Amino acid sequence: MSENQPLKVALFGSGRIGQVHARNIAAHPDLELAWIVDPFIEGARTLAAGTGAQAVASADEVFANADLDAVIIGSPTNTHVDLISRAMSHGVAALCEKPIDLDLDRVRACRASLEGNPTPLMLGFNRRFDPHFAAIQARVASGEIGRLEQLTIISRDPAPAPEAYILASGGIFRDQSIHDLDMARFFVPDIVEVQATGTNVFCDYIEEAGDFDSVVITLKGSGGELVTITNSRHSAFGHDQRLEAFGSDGMLSAGNMAPTTVRKYGAAGTEGADPYLPFFLERYAEAYRNELDAFAQAIRTGTACSPGFDDGLQALLLANAAEESARTGRTVKIGKEQP
Amino acid sequence: MSENQPLKVALFGSGRIGQVHARNIAAHPDLELAWIVDPFIEGARTLAAGTGAQAVASADEVFANADLDAVIIGSPTNTHVDLISRAMSHGVAALCEKPIDLDLDRVRACRASLEGNPTPLMLGFNRRFDPHFAAIQARVASGEIGRLEQLTIISRDPAPAPEAYILASGGIFRDQSIHDLDMARFFVPDIVEVQATGTNVFCDYIEEAGDFDSVVITLKGSGGELVTITNSRHSAFGHDQRLEAFGSDGMLSAGNMAPTTVRKYGAAGTEGADPYLPFFLERYAEAYRNELDAFAQAIRTGTACSPGFDDGLQALLLANAAEESARTGRTVKIGKEQP
Amino acid sequence: MSENQPLKVALFGSGRIGQVHARNIAAHPDLELAWIVDPFIEGARTLAAGTGAQAVASADEVFANADLDAVIIGSPTNTHVDLISRAMSHGVAALCEKPIDLDLDRVRACRASLEGNPTPLMLGFNRRFDPHFAAIQARVASGEIGRLEQLTIISRDPAPAPEAYILASGGIFRDQSIHDLDMARFFVPDIVEVQATGTNVFCDYIEEAGDFDSVVITLKGSGGELVTITNSRHSAFGHDQRLEAFGSDGMLSAGNMAPTTVRKYGAAGTEGADPYLPFFLERYAEAYRNELDAFAQAIRTGTACSPGFDDGLQALLLANAAEESARTGRTVKIGKEQP
Amino acid sequence: MSENQPLKVALFGSGRIGQVHARNIAAHPDLELAWIVDPFIEGARTLAAGTGAQAVASADEVFANADLDAVIIGSPTNTHVDLISRAMSHGVAALCEKPIDLDLDRVRACRASLEGNPTPLMLGFNRRFDPHFAAIQARVASGEIGRLEQLTIISRDPAPAPEAYILASGGIFRDQSIHDLDMARFFVPDIVEVQATGTNVFCDYIEEAGDFDSVVITLKGSGGELVTITNSRHSAFGHDQRLEAFGSDGMLSAGNMAPTTVRKYGAAGTEGADPYLPFFLERYAEAYRNELDAFAQAIRTGTACSPGFDDGLQALLLANAAEESARTGRTVKIGKEQP
Repeated sequence: MSENQPLKVALFGSGRIGQVHARNIAAHPDLELAWIVDPFIEGARTLAAGTGAQAVASADEVFANADLDAVIIGSPTNTHVDLISRAMSHGVAALCEKPIDLDLDRVRACRASLEGNPTPLMLGFNRRFDPHFAAIQARVASGEIGRLEQLTIISRDPAPAPEAYILASGGIFRDQSIHDLDMARFFVPDIVEVQATGTNVFCDYIEEAGDFDSVVITLKGSGGELVTITNSRHSAFGHDQRLEAFGSDGMLSAGNMAPTTVRKYGAAGTEGADPYLPFFLERYAEAYRNELDAFAQAIRTGTACSPGFDDGLQALLLANAAEESARTGRTVKIGKEQP
Repeated sequence: MSENQPLKVALFGSGRIGQVHARNIAAHPDLELAWIVDPFIEGARTLAAGTGAQAVASADEVFANADLDAVIIGSPTNTHVDLISRAMSHGVAALCEKPIDLDLDRVRACRASLEGNPTPLMLGFNRRFDPHFAAIQARVASGEIGRLEQLTIISRDPAPAPEAYILASGGIFRDQSIHDLDMARFFVPDIVEVQATGTNVFCDYIEEAGDFDSVVITLKGSGGELVTITNSRHSAFGHDQRLEAFGSDGMLSAGNMAPTTVRKYGAAGTEGADPYLPFFLERYAEAYRNELDAFAQAIRTGTACSPGFDDGLQALLLANAAEESARTGRTVKIGKEQP
Repeated sequence: MSENQPLKVALFGSGRIGQVHARNIAAHPDLELAWIVDPFIEGARTLAAGTGAQAVASADEVFANADLDAVIIGSPTNTHVDLISRAMSHGVAALCEKPIDLDLDRVRACRASLEGNPTPLMLGFNRRFDPHFAAIQARVASGEIGRLEQLTIISRDPAPAPEAYILASGGIFRDQSIHDLDMARFFVPDIVEVQATGTNVFCDYIEEAGDFDSVVITLKGSGGELVTITNSRHSAFGHDQRLEAFGSDGMLSAGNMAPTTVRKYGAAGTEGADPYLPFFLERYAEAYRNELDAFAQAIRTGTACSPGFDDGLQALLLANAAEESARTGRTVKIGKEQP
Repeated sequence: MSENQPLKVALFGSGRIGQVHARNIAAHPDLELAWIVDPFIEGARTLAAGTGAQAVASADEVFANADLDAVIIGSPTNTHVDLISRAMSHGVAALCEKPIDLDLDRVRACRASLEGNPTPLMLGFNRRFDPHFAAIQARVASGEIGRLEQLTIISRDPAPAPEAYILASGGIFRDQSIHDLDMARFFVPDIVEVQATGTNVFCDYIEEAGDFDSVVITLKGSGGELVTITNSRHSAFGHDQRLEAFGSDGMLSAGNMAPTTVRKYGAAGTEGADPYLPFFLERYAEAYRNELDAFAQAIRTGTACSPGFDDGLQALLLANAAEESARTGRTVKIGKEQP
């Protein structure tokens, strides 16, 4: 890593999320997109075109480079643990998309193997870097609303993923809710109880897959905080992403985002805004940029990455507990994970 | 006037505005609706039914009663000066709808004749009693936004009055804008200059009547305050009634009122409220009640009525000045009215 | 009951809620406040003053009157069943405040005794008559947002009741949440599962009473609908009463109510509204009036009262189930109540 | 101009506005920042550092380059006409900040000299590219609100420029209002009358300079449209930039922008947003990017630039007319400018 040169980055995955990272790396003054890795080499080549990056098909070609500074892992979930391990063993900083893995045992094994390794490792819970949610978290932490008592998270995707994706997703709790579970932990890190309920109200193939299309999760924090998460796999009016932090002295809320501030007034109604930003690529565009910048800064300054590997593990534990609660009808207690 | 009995009130006029006052008098604990006066006696009878009030056709029958405490004048404009004069000469408190008269000379003569008469006389500029505008006026007066610098009034009726009404109305400045001119004076009592412009953009019979359907008025206060009034005789989305007071330290605004707080979110748009309250009867329902209560209190306590006769005169002077400015293209200076 | 005379009403209870009803009865054209009943006769007398009503200490004096048309029961909870029974046995219409009783067995016995009795009996779940919530319910019922999938209710009181009240209240679920449970049933009448969690985060005497100060309840309807209720016994910014109905085609929400539409803009922040209406007396003033009117109309037209006795029973069953779930950590299934 | 290479751009001026353009040029895929020109060479060098651009002190060095494709003129106003002329005579596309010049005769002479010259020339009225205002303009043009009748523009700067700037600014009408006058023309291109009033309410050195600190302008369009512009040189709550288009069928409005969607609720007030974005650099960041992109596209496609030179001239004519009206108290008619 040279102090005078941008950090050389390899990006794994040329899909939807890889494209977001590619653009952001290209625009970041301290990052250089050097390699794009995808076994589907055409995808890598298309994305690399005009960026100066090299398109390669295998991770080996990347880790062989001595000047590799960081990897960003946006490839399929089942590659995450392996790529994290390789990056960490090479002392190469990594930013990995969630989830670490759908299999808790693999995640724990990976964590054990990383014990004591100081290489920067960040988990891609990008919503922590959303300026709206981050502002609330900072203001709550500063005591602006007194003691935090209740947190309300409403999070609805615009439309369900295709059937093939749903089947491989690990289910709504591990695929969709996990973002909100991490958001809950952003405000209330120590969750002690999980309740959840799920239903099927609109999507046949989700039901046939044995998954829910709509869920509600209630969490209790060790300080008595109550967190509710309301999820749906669809929303007629765009990506519905809201959060309210209620405390002893007041409340802070973050609303949805329309593309403009324009309001319409007519015989049929007044003050109507546009439909909200359609999905996470638009809604969290700034969050992805801020996340990348935090990653670059953590590498440069040597400070700990946040969120880190353990946050990925904890979110997965909560997602599993929610699934268990929804299946059994029982509140699930969360024990301390022994490292 | 008995301290233990409600004040006995005669209401002149059984039209739209008379009906508002009749209901409010009936509901007021310190007022008794004793007479309803209308030469169109059927109207008076219909309105009197079930109220205990007596329907009479002529003012004479009313002023002959020794126990008459107050009159509320909601009859046609050309009766106002005469009824005010009679009430004042009988020592009977009066609340008179705006305008006092369309003829400035008659108004001035009436004022001269009332010189020194202490009988309570209130002008029905009901919007001063609207809780939203009144709250802003009080907060501005308290210094909450520092020195008042600019006042923005937007005031649009839902639809133009019928042609017959327009022809007798005295024109948009004396009929519609006069409310806003008084509102301007509620915040900036001493207006020194008037500019106005009018156009015809949607209503043929208003144009044929030689009147404008849309106007803008700019006022300058003696302290350099700038007031803009934007009027239209129509509005597709309900009664548009807004006000913003801008000061050196901040701003206070009052928005329109929808019938409920309900918002709609769908594929076509988000956060849509209902159309606004349709017209002044709904929009200013609370203002009319508060106005009546202030009138009753002024009678009971012997304090000066506000707004009073002079406010009616000043508003008319400003309306005339606006008309002159719109016709001549010249700024009109407002001199001190010599009493 | 005379068709030409207002209905003669006896009001039980001269406390806070009795005072609301007394004012509304007095203002209602088809109701006459004839008796106010309170063993604390001074309270009854004070409230009766100036209304023409007779203050009496015992129910016997009221039910002895052959011209009694209706009773409104706003006396303590433990008097409700007895007064309902007496009214029904006299064929006198009744509007009873919630809850019917805290003891489910008494409620069931009362219901059994009323089997077949056609006398109008309305339960005082006044929030169903709130114009904002009622508008949403009607629009959802009309299909405006497609199939209802999720309902989010946030309901926070401004401050906890005094310790003595808390001890006799039956607990937060039966005292506070019961309104929201009925609201849930207003939208989703057939609830099949209840989950709840409670915590103590701010009020010692509530904790010492073995009660919760903050709870979250999740309900599942027979159609797969998910309802979340978030309650707190306090709120720094006024009575927090919100509802969102989310459906397959969109969403309808109702927000909180500030006393005016005024917004403040300054160096410290922008668009700031006033604190919300402080508590239910202000927030639900219109709901109480509408409720009373619906009661009068049901009596006049002979149509069934809604909400009725069974709604009171169902809400209590849900409150009990929520309590059980919060205590055991298990989801409670709601069986069909056998009449 | 090569089709395969980004357009080579020279930027005149390294001040505040030059810095905005420099960043945006660097980020634009079809533009290359080749030269930064400033007689204050240190400024040019600082801005050029790390961009690959060459810092030069004189325009001669730039126009000598055969591969110069475009210039962006962000230097002082008195250099504009000369730089425009040189660019046009070299066939080099130009984007010039407003105003063209403060002297109408110079502007007219410049226009005459450009007669028939097809080289792209864009005027930097960046607000036309603001996504909020542009969306409204497009929706009005599409007929969404019927015929446009009234346009309300409120535009307040956060704080007055320093005295030295004020003295050279040409006055509030030509310096600040000119943006709003062009915005008026964006909606109502053909303005036929101008009224204006100005006052001094808060800033001594502006008054001493013979300028106003607060003005109101009313414009009339050839179709009877009424436009009001309210300006102040200060605003306690950030850059106040709003617009409302009122038509026969409804209204479209664009509000101010806070940095986040966060709202605060507490004992002192509810729904409070953050102070608005402080000034034009933040508020119009996206507008500047869109403007630059439109400029690049106009060059590439050979389509006419909009806004163009004539828009700059018309805005200046309106600013002069407003000044004249404010000084004389007379409405000023706008004649057709003869080319």
